[in-house]
Amino acid sequence: MIGCVCLNAAIDVTYRVDALRPGTSHRVREVHARAGGKALNVARVLHQLDEPAVVLGFAGGAAGEALRDDLEAAGLRHALVTARAETRRTVTVVASDSTTVLNEPGGPIAPEEWDRLLDDFDRRCTDLDAVALCGSLPAGLPGSAYAQLIEIARAHDLPTVLDATDTPFLSGVRAGPTVVAPNQVEAATVLEMPIDTAAEAARAGRRLREYGADLAVITRGGRGAVLVTADATLSAHVEEAISGNPTGAGDALVAVLSLGLLPAARSWPDLLPQAISVAAAAVVCPVAGEFDPTVAARLQPTVRLEEV
Amino acid sequence: MIGCVCLNAAIDVTYRVDALRPGTSHRVREVHARAGGKALNVARVLHQLDEPAVVLGFAGGAAGEALRDDLEAAGLRHALVTARAETRRTVTVVASDSTTVLNEPGGPIAPEEWDRLLDDFDRRCTDLDAVALCGSLPAGLPGSAYAQLIEIARAHDLPTVLDATDTPFLSGVRAGPTVVAPNQVEAATVLEMPIDTAAEAARAGRRLREYGADLAVITRGGRGAVLVTADATLSAHVEEAISGNPTGAGDALVAVLSLGLLPAARSWPDLLPQAISVAAAAVVCPVAGEFDPTVAARLQPTVRLEEV
Repeated sequence: MIGCVCLNAAIDVTYRVDALRPGTSHRVREVHARAGGKALNVARVLHQLDEPAVVLGFAGGAAGEALRDDLEAAGLRHALVTARAETRRTVTVVASDSTTVLNEPGGPIAPEEWDRLLDDFDRRCTDLDAVALCGSLPAGLPGSAYAQLIEIARAHDLPTVLDATDTPFLSGVRAGPTVVAPNQVEAATVLEMPIDTAAEAARAGRRLREYGADLAVITRGGRGAVLVTADATLSAHVEEAISGNPTGAGDALVAVLSLGLLPAARSWPDLLPQAISVAAAAVVCPVAGEFDPTVAARLQPTVRLEEV
Repeated sequence: MIGCVCLNAAIDVTYRVDALRPGTSHRVREVHARAGGKALNVARVLHQLDEPAVVLGFAGGAAGEALRDDLEAAGLRHALVTARAETRRTVTVVASDSTTVLNEPGGPIAPEEWDRLLDDFDRRCTDLDAVALCGSLPAGLPGSAYAQLIEIARAHDLPTVLDATDTPFLSGVRAGPTVVAPNQVEAATVLEMPIDTAAEAARAGRRLREYGADLAVITRGGRGAVLVTADATLSAHVEEAISGNPTGAGDALVAVLSLGLLPAARSWPDLLPQAISVAAAAVVCPVAGEFDPTVAARLQPTVRLEEV
């Protein structure tokens, strides 16, 4: 069982409008809502891969109830700590010529609610085989939130994969997760270095290993990803240009990487083509947290691996 | 007691962002939510004027519970029919250089839910002195919704004031409300005539009286309003330019007009200066459904009445 830690889960609302014109009033044509958040998307992809997963994090208020209901409707296990703050919403405004996202910050989470989550996580670790920690933090949580969770997991000999941003990410990396999987923009920001080429991504990966990660995967959008282990630095990508919705592609990649943390997992160079193809097959799906298995199966043999 | 019929009540959410850029992702700095809807704003202003009011309409789902909670917190009476559809949200994105509104459509209301509201309204009419009917209709309601309610009110000898748009408005006007109070853009649309000058607004008012209203007030934004009765056509405005948030000014005006429907009310020409000054005093308040009583008291003696 893989624990998917989603500290800032959301109800993702999508509005369809004719065109988004700042300064004017809009009639929303269609409204869709579903549970979202990066680690929650990871759990959805694991579920699609028939790998047991459980969503951990916070749920609050009426939106928190809607979150739990939506996870149950999707057949996803969850064990969410109840918070006083209403679960946040994100609003994505889809127009014919643009897609605009408004992310509520989430929280504030009270100190005793965070303590409850840490205690709960510590107890649940005995039932888990690996932990994926992804996404932003709600207001009220310390910048060390991921670091604290990674230390608890390590005390249980549990492997971890981390995908986050800014201080919470860097502090998490210093706590020594098994895998880090930032995209190159996130990595460039926290490492304060330019990352454009595969060689620069490889250098960023080595820096993240020096900071504490066993293994680093730097994702590069349509250009695939660079894997840096103790023994090898590999770039992987699909030749085919994939168009669609890139939101959630990184989460799909993290889902496959978390399979590499399980007992008797394949080697990382073996797993990488699946990770890349599932991520690419997520781009063709309109919503985050899904991938097209037919597209993934077609792409996987075409993934090109190169030493950097 | 004035019944405020709010068929498409909403949770009005306000997001503060640095700037709204279509096609990009935004961090929302602040989130505020409160119960909204035109007739609900009318009820808030009546409450501020110490006039008993009750909000009638639909509430559904978790947002419907939040709506009831917010009304109770504001000390507003309500008697809302429970609907299966979640109460809608509106999202207003406030940036330094623009204010952008996204209105969810609301509903769908099931036919049996509408029947329940009609029955409930019929029963409650005996406790009411006047009825204000304002705003859009949720999906599922017939275009004749306001007309049906006005007919029920008339069967109870209850006076009504109507402020709506498009077919539901015109059909409501034909049912013979006591007062109609569209803004000049709404009136121009339904009457298919240009309205810019006071003389044109007066002509529109006369047309609305021909269609069935006893009395018409055409609101003209910063240029005040034109009142058309059987005996007189008066234009009223304040000289002072008022800047601020015009959303809700029309609702504040309707609130004062509904006082004119009560037993022993002042004459319309007497009431008009208060309506104009309360509407102007709503513009200086940041949220709809409030007015600044000091500003209203200062402006009221300055309202200029002119025969058109």
